[in-house]
Amino acid sequence: MKDQKYLEMAMDQAKKGLGQTWQNPLVGAVIVKNDQVLAKGYHRRFGEKHAEIDAISHLKNEKEATGATIYVTLEPCSHQGKTPPCVNKIIELGFKRVVIGQIDPNPQVSGKSVERMKQHGIQVTNLDNSKSLNPAYNFYFKNGRPLITLKYAMSLDGKINQKSGYRTKLTGKYTFKDTQKLRLMNQAILIGENTLKIDDPKLTVRTNPLFPPYRVVLIHDSRELNLQQSIFKSEGPTYILTNYKNEQHLPENVHVVVDETWTPKKIIDFLTKQGIQSLLIEGGSHIHADFVKSGLVDQLIAYVAPKLIGGSGLPSVFGQGISEMLDFKIEKISQLGSDLKVFAKRVY
Amino acid sequence: MKDQKYLEMAMDQAKKGLGQTWQNPLVGAVIVKNDQVLAKGYHRRFGEKHAEIDAISHLKNEKEATGATIYVTLEPCSHQGKTPPCVNKIIELGFKRVVIGQIDPNPQVSGKSVERMKQHGIQVTNLDNSKSLNPAYNFYFKNGRPLITLKYAMSLDGKINQKSGYRTKLTGKYTFKDTQKLRLMNQAILIGENTLKIDDPKLTVRTNPLFPPYRVVLIHDSRELNLQQSIFKSEGPTYILTNYKNEQHLPENVHVVVDETWTPKKIIDFLTKQGIQSLLIEGGSHIHADFVKSGLVDQLIAYVAPKLIGGSGLPSVFGQGISEMLDFKIEKISQLGSDLKVFAKRVY
Repeated sequence: MKDQKYLEMAMDQAKKGLGQTWQNPLVGAVIVKNDQVLAKGYHRRFGEKHAEIDAISHLKNEKEATGATIYVTLEPCSHQGKTPPCVNKIIELGFKRVVIGQIDPNPQVSGKSVERMKQHGIQVTNLDNSKSLNPAYNFYFKNGRPLITLKYAMSLDGKINQKSGYRTKLTGKYTFKDTQKLRLMNQAILIGENTLKIDDPKLTVRTNPLFPPYRVVLIHDSRELNLQQSIFKSEGPTYILTNYKNEQHLPENVHVVVDETWTPKKIIDFLTKQGIQSLLIEGGSHIHADFVKSGLVDQLIAYVAPKLIGGSGLPSVFGQGISEMLDFKIEKISQLGSDLKVFAKRVY
Repeated sequence: MKDQKYLEMAMDQAKKGLGQTWQNPLVGAVIVKNDQVLAKGYHRRFGEKHAEIDAISHLKNEKEATGATIYVTLEPCSHQGKTPPCVNKIIELGFKRVVIGQIDPNPQVSGKSVERMKQHGIQVTNLDNSKSLNPAYNFYFKNGRPLITLKYAMSLDGKINQKSGYRTKLTGKYTFKDTQKLRLMNQAILIGENTLKIDDPKLTVRTNPLFPPYRVVLIHDSRELNLQQSIFKSEGPTYILTNYKNEQHLPENVHVVVDETWTPKKIIDFLTKQGIQSLLIEGGSHIHADFVKSGLVDQLIAYVAPKLIGGSGLPSVFGQGISEMLDFKIEKISQLGSDLKVFAKRVY
C-alpha cells in the first residue's frame, strides 16, 4: 500500500516533464526513509538530469540516501548516455531499496540495471504499473516502430469536406486546442500532398515547444514544391518524402528524402531509423486509406462535427482497392464544445 | 410544487401506453382531492378510452369527482372521435379544477377545451411541461408533416459497407435491440431499392406490436418486384412508392402508389396525408443524401461500429450534386456494447 502511494507520487512528478523530454521517457522519482519523503525529482528536459539524479540533488545531504528507498517510475539506466548511468549513483550512495514502476523496454537497459543493483545487495521491487506514462516509448521498443495515430475531423456522415479539393471548416475552437495538445504528444506528423496544397498548414505547435514534432510530407515530385507555403516559412524539422529530388535551394530545416516508391511500410521504417516513437497522421483521405490498408494504424482520434454534409464530399478514409476492416475498441468519448471526440485503440 | 408532483405522476401513467397508442398521443391522468390521490389512468391503446375516462373509471364512485382536481398531461378532447369528448364528462362530474401538461396541438381541440371548461366555471392551469412525452405528435401538428429521423450504422470512418452492393454486418446485438425500439417509436420506416435488394430486410418489430410501423419502399419500377423477398412474406402495412405500376397479384398488405417522380417532398406529402407523424429513414446512402439535400432531416441517429473500413466502401450519406451542410446539435451519446450511439437534433 505504501509502495503504491509513493510510486504514484513519483508518477505525478514524471508528468511535470510532459512535452519537454522529446524521445526520452517521462520519469519521476521520490526518496523515502522511515516513511518520510526526503526528496522528489523528475526528468525535466531531453539532455538534462534523469529523475533519480534530480531527486538526489534535492536531498539536504547525499548521506541521507544511505539506507533509504528510492521510488522510480522506470528502471534506472545502466548505460552511458547524455548523462552517466543512474545505477552507479544509486549503488554508490548506499540506497537500501529501489521500487520501480516498470522495466525499461530499451534493450540497452532492460533488466540489466535490476540485476546490477541486486548484485550489490539492493532490494528491488517492480510494481509494474506505470507503463501508461509512456505509451509511445513502450510501444516503440516492444514493436520496433512508432505508435501510429490516425486523426481526422469529419461530419456526422463521415465526410471531411463538402467537395473534393476544397477545405471545409468543420470543427470548433475546443477541437483546435485539443489538436494542438495531440501534436505536442507526437514526435512526428505526417500529411499528404493534397492536404499540403489545399489546407496549407503550418503543422506547428502554438506553444512553441523545445522539441517540435517532425513535419513529414509525402510528395510525389518535390520539384513541384511551392516554397511560399506556410510549412516552409515556419521553424521545425521538416522531411519531404518524395520520388523525385528537388534541386532548389531549400531552407535549412527542410530535408528531402528520395525513394522510388514510398509505401506506408517504408515511411514507418524511415521514421523508426530516426528514433521516432510516435506518429500522428493528419490527412488526407488517401494517406489514411493507404495506412488502413497496410494495417499500420494503432490508434484513432476522430473529431465529429455536428453536421450532415451529404452529397459527394470526400470520406475521411478513402482509396481504391478491396476494403479491409480493422477492429478497434472505443476507449473514450468526450464533448469538445459542440464537437465530439472519439478515441479508439486497435484490437489486434 | 404539488401540481408539478401530480402532473409528473400523470406523465408516468402516460408512458405505460408506449408503443400501443399508434397515432394517438401518450396521455396520463391523476385525480386528486384534499391532497389524496383517488385514481390514476392512461390511454392504453389506440381506439380505447382516453386517460381521463380511464382514471374516472377507477374511482370507487363517480361522485368522488365532484370538487376534485384532475391532472392530465394533454388538454382533454372536445371532439367526437372514436370515443365521446372527455370535456363533457369532466364538466358533468363537477370537477373543480383541471391541470394540464400542454395544449393539444391538434387544431380540432387546440385551446377549445380549455375555453369550454372555463365557461363552465372550472379552474384551468396549464403547466406547459409535458411536450417531451409526444415529440412526433407535437411536431406533426406544428409543422404539418412527420418528424423525420435519419438512421444508419457506420464504421469509424463513416462507411456503411466494405464494397458497394454488399451488406457488411457492422454493429452488435445491443444496437440491434436499440433499432427495434426505434422502429416501435416510429409510425413509418422508409428504405430505398438497393437496401431492399441487398439487405432483404423484414422491417418488422420483433415484439409484434398491435400497430406496426408502415413499411415504405421506394422502387423505380415496381414491375421488377421480387415477391420472394422477406418484406412481402411478413405482416404489416407496406407501401411501394414507384414510377411504374405493378399488375401482379400482390399480398393484401402491399399497396402500390404510382407517381412519375418521387421526390423527398412528395414522399413526405404522401405520408402526411396518411396521418403519419414520424418517419424513420433506414437507408441506403442515396436516399439519405436526397433527404439531406432537401433539408428534410430533423433528427439523426448514427450507430458507430468500432471499425475502420477504408477503401472504397459506400459512405453513410452519398449522392451527386453540390453538397449542402445541415447543422445539428449532439443531444446524447451512449455506448451500446462496443458500438457508439450518437443522437443529434437539427438546428434550424
